[in-house]
Amino acid sequence: MKTVTDKAARDKRGKSKNARSRSDEEKDLRQQQILEAAIIEFDSNGYEKTSMGAIAKRAGLSRTLVNFYFGDKEGVHAEIERKALASMTEMCVSAAKRQKLGIDKLLAIGRAYVRFQKKYPGYFEALARKEDGQIQKQLESPTVDSTQVIAEAINTGIADGTVKHNFNNLTQASLALWATAHGFIVIAENKGTVLKAHWGVNASTLLKSLDIAITSMFSNSD
Amino acid sequence: MKTVTDKAARDKRGKSKNARSRSDEEKDLRQQQILEAAIIEFDSNGYEKTSMGAIAKRAGLSRTLVNFYFGDKEGVHAEIERKALASMTEMCVSAAKRQKLGIDKLLAIGRAYVRFQKKYPGYFEALARKEDGQIQKQLESPTVDSTQVIAEAINTGIADGTVKHNFNNLTQASLALWATAHGFIVIAENKGTVLKAHWGVNASTLLKSLDIAITSMFSNSD
Repeated sequence: MKTVTDKAARDKRGKSKNARSRSDEEKDLRQQQILEAAIIEFDSNGYEKTSMGAIAKRAGLSRTLVNFYFGDKEGVHAEIERKALASMTEMCVSAAKRQKLGIDKLLAIGRAYVRFQKKYPGYFEALARKEDGQIQKQLESPTVDSTQVIAEAINTGIADGTVKHNFNNLTQASLALWATAHGFIVIAENKGTVLKAHWGVNASTLLKSLDIAITSMFSNSD
Repeated sequence: MKTVTDKAARDKRGKSKNARSRSDEEKDLRQQQILEAAIIEFDSNGYEKTSMGAIAKRAGLSRTLVNFYFGDKEGVHAEIERKALASMTEMCVSAAKRQKLGIDKLLAIGRAYVRFQKKYPGYFEALARKEDGQIQKQLESPTVDSTQVIAEAINTGIADGTVKHNFNNLTQASLALWATAHGFIVIAENKGTVLKAHWGVNASTLLKSLDIAITSMFSNSD
């Protein structure tokens, strides 16, 4: 833990506030480096086969430092999921906020989920990945409720008359929007070549038609 | 190629028709063994890292025999995709055929796709997998048009008045049904634990709500 201890000692010796905030930035940067390296390793070799050593090597940092920041591999994965959920939720919440009508909020959330995958493909992948016995603990207690924002938009839409409510309950309706948007993204992402070659459809065109799918599924006046 | 040559020689020596059809069965069985072994290898190590040797070893057959039947790894993968597409299409076509009204055909197709994943998870995975430069050739020319059956059901539904047509064209509407059903299946398959822990929803309950999603998206009278 040489690097870290040295730095801590330096901090203790009483650097200016400015210098300390620079070192915080360095810490954030290093943690981000580790998470990005881990995303690449998890994506290419799977969770099981990825070692902390491999993550450290790809990040260009010592294994000791990786252990210091995240504990173990489960800790690294949990942090990726936490950041991924936080980014996704933040994008959906701020997109929904900009719209007044319920149906427009739902459309905005669908588009935000599409943008989230484009902006953070590694985060999307981490959240989409098949659950694993070993990393189940984290998945069981997500800190952010990512469908809450959808449920609120549906409620707004029921109140303002723009959203029909065919599902048995709000949870079911919210999960339906998530699953639908998810399916469009996964097909666009994984099947671009066959979409173009066989149906003459660009992946981006498919993603645009998610608007029509959401309108058809939720709009009261379609 | 000892095994194969020996058998071919035996066949040539004029076995009874019965014996030959038995040997055809053996051949089918061995090919199926190889494809199943390949599915397991592709799933656990990815296409790139899977060797013909590993496939042969898992199938408990010689590498020579695997080469004889399928040529190379690309040939094995192409055959898996071909069989997967054929099984999926067959299940969707026969499910749609049993219904009269267009909307009921669409619901039947959605349920058939869910059953296809349950019955042949390896095939579903092979079709869902991200396209790969190396195996792109096969993906570019699927022999069976898996969305044709959806397009026909939508046409039936437009004619009998049970299906609304909000999409810009039939292809877009068909892909929307595929993407939606796909999303429900992938979320149910990958996120069972978090669905249950966080929303109190069983994966099977989510899959049942696909009916409501399809009805909301396509029914003229919802």
